[in-house]
Amino acid sequence: MHTIAQYRDAFLEYLDTTLETKEPKNLYEPITYILNLGGKRLRPVLVLMSAEIFDAPYQKALQAALAIEVFHNFSLVHDDIMDAAPIRRGKATVHEKWDLNTGILSGDAMLINAYQLFEHYEGSIFKELAQLFTKTAIQVCEGQQYDIDFESREDVEIEDYLKMIEYKTAVLVGASLQMGAIVAGAPEDCKRSVYQYGRLLGIAFQLQDDYLDAFGNPDTFGKQVGGDIIENKKTFLYLKALENSERNEASNLEHLYSISPVDATGKIEAVKLIFEQSGAAELTRAEIKKYTKEAFAILDKIEIPEDKKSLLRSFGSSLMEREV
Amino acid sequence: MHTIAQYRDAFLEYLDTTLETKEPKNLYEPITYILNLGGKRLRPVLVLMSAEIFDAPYQKALQAALAIEVFHNFSLVHDDIMDAAPIRRGKATVHEKWDLNTGILSGDAMLINAYQLFEHYEGSIFKELAQLFTKTAIQVCEGQQYDIDFESREDVEIEDYLKMIEYKTAVLVGASLQMGAIVAGAPEDCKRSVYQYGRLLGIAFQLQDDYLDAFGNPDTFGKQVGGDIIENKKTFLYLKALENSERNEASNLEHLYSISPVDATGKIEAVKLIFEQSGAAELTRAEIKKYTKEAFAILDKIEIPEDKKSLLRSFGSSLMEREV
Repeated sequence: MHTIAQYRDAFLEYLDTTLETKEPKNLYEPITYILNLGGKRLRPVLVLMSAEIFDAPYQKALQAALAIEVFHNFSLVHDDIMDAAPIRRGKATVHEKWDLNTGILSGDAMLINAYQLFEHYEGSIFKELAQLFTKTAIQVCEGQQYDIDFESREDVEIEDYLKMIEYKTAVLVGASLQMGAIVAGAPEDCKRSVYQYGRLLGIAFQLQDDYLDAFGNPDTFGKQVGGDIIENKKTFLYLKALENSERNEASNLEHLYSISPVDATGKIEAVKLIFEQSGAAELTRAEIKKYTKEAFAILDKIEIPEDKKSLLRSFGSSLMEREV
Repeated sequence: MHTIAQYRDAFLEYLDTTLETKEPKNLYEPITYILNLGGKRLRPVLVLMSAEIFDAPYQKALQAALAIEVFHNFSLVHDDIMDAAPIRRGKATVHEKWDLNTGILSGDAMLINAYQLFEHYEGSIFKELAQLFTKTAIQVCEGQQYDIDFESREDVEIEDYLKMIEYKTAVLVGASLQMGAIVAGAPEDCKRSVYQYGRLLGIAFQLQDDYLDAFGNPDTFGKQVGGDIIENKKTFLYLKALENSERNEASNLEHLYSISPVDATGKIEAVKLIFEQSGAAELTRAEIKKYTKEAFAILDKIEIPEDKKSLLRSFGSSLMEREV
């Protein structure tokens, strides 16, 4: 087995040998650009790690790992257009650096390219990978649609929100782990369990991300603390606070989520106070713990040697402690 | 064997039973909408016809036929955004009826859905279909990129143009025929030949489309005659005219292609005169004949019974005579 840093290096080396800016340049340059913007490469690392956990050399899983990373970057390029985001990882987004059409078309090419990477695998493995990929990719699209819909919907339920983050974020984490298991030819129940481990951990991670967006340490969180509040995003914290507030307090929160003051400091403080006083902050921490615990319970039952299990466990722990 | 009308009806019936507007509605309604806008359904008809020509019941090829049609409609939705086109088949385009984000996201879902439709086929057939589909889809994206690039390029060569229409239009016609052959388990050389037949016919058809855009009968052409001239599109006619004109005439043509008068009647007449006097019109007719002849020569050599061959031949003839 290898360390996370080793998997990441191996992936980056493979990425480097694979990326070539073919003709037409205007289609392929943005792809090279976005794939070189960096990031933690968590998803491809999970594919490689999972392959070794199920006894295949990680080298066998490099193409699947790249497919996942290419797909993830496709979704970033198209999502950035939809969110009108100018910056990604400190650099201009593709549609900003080039234009809208380039963002759409090179995104399309990346989605197709992800499928192409699976062609490295023989018939039945290819089908299994492509089928899981398709199911996951459709869910990611559906999750993005729910996210867009929520902006203008006034009747979003906690359950809807959990489904949205599951589809938009968590299923791809599960699929990354399952792909490693598929490449390694792992038994069906192992594939299912490792997928569930990733999915539950992905939900926990996203809930924690929402929590830290309000209550995180500005020095270490990496994003602007309070960003979701500024954008009136209906997160778990917000929905829980509404659910657990008296009518007056709920109206107050809804009012705060209808305004966009130039200086948001006061609004952020007021909202955070409601999040705490309503119990929503504590309920969110409990929910994060619940999903993390569920994830680890599934991991415990997977039939693999303890040393391998502990690698998956420590990955999960460091993810939740934001150390990777 | 069946008639083209019968294949079309069978396809439409299958489409009708398959289309369902799932949740989230905002993602799936645009898909149902665009797939119900109509059109000649030439590509799915070719898939079904090809399956029967190679001795499989066409029913076996319905999923592949739908995949091709869904992909074709994905490309229409994204291309319409890129071309800022408000109308498609007499109705509002998806990004007009909904919005930009809906156009991007439901297009993405259609591209993924096309792959999903191949899952109906077992491992090796699935891989063969998906692989051909991926190769073709990448080429369609590259063709679209070349088409966009040509708008601002002053150094487009005839060869570049032919590659652009081959990628953007013709390869999907070839792939449609090859998919029918793959589903039917046809021999390798038959698959290759039927693909080439479609590809060459596709190029001939697109060249003819360009020709008719200038010289077609306004009552039967279906699109606005002179549309390419109004939009200063660097078609085969234009590039051939430049190549075959004295310097003065070429400058005149380039000037005409730099202006966008409110009443384009005079410009269209002047450009058409140059197309004729330079010999470009005749050379284009000759090029169309050359590709059509090449296509039929390849068809002649495919080892299938004469009655089946004649179905493919009469489809090609009626396509070029614009009767289908």
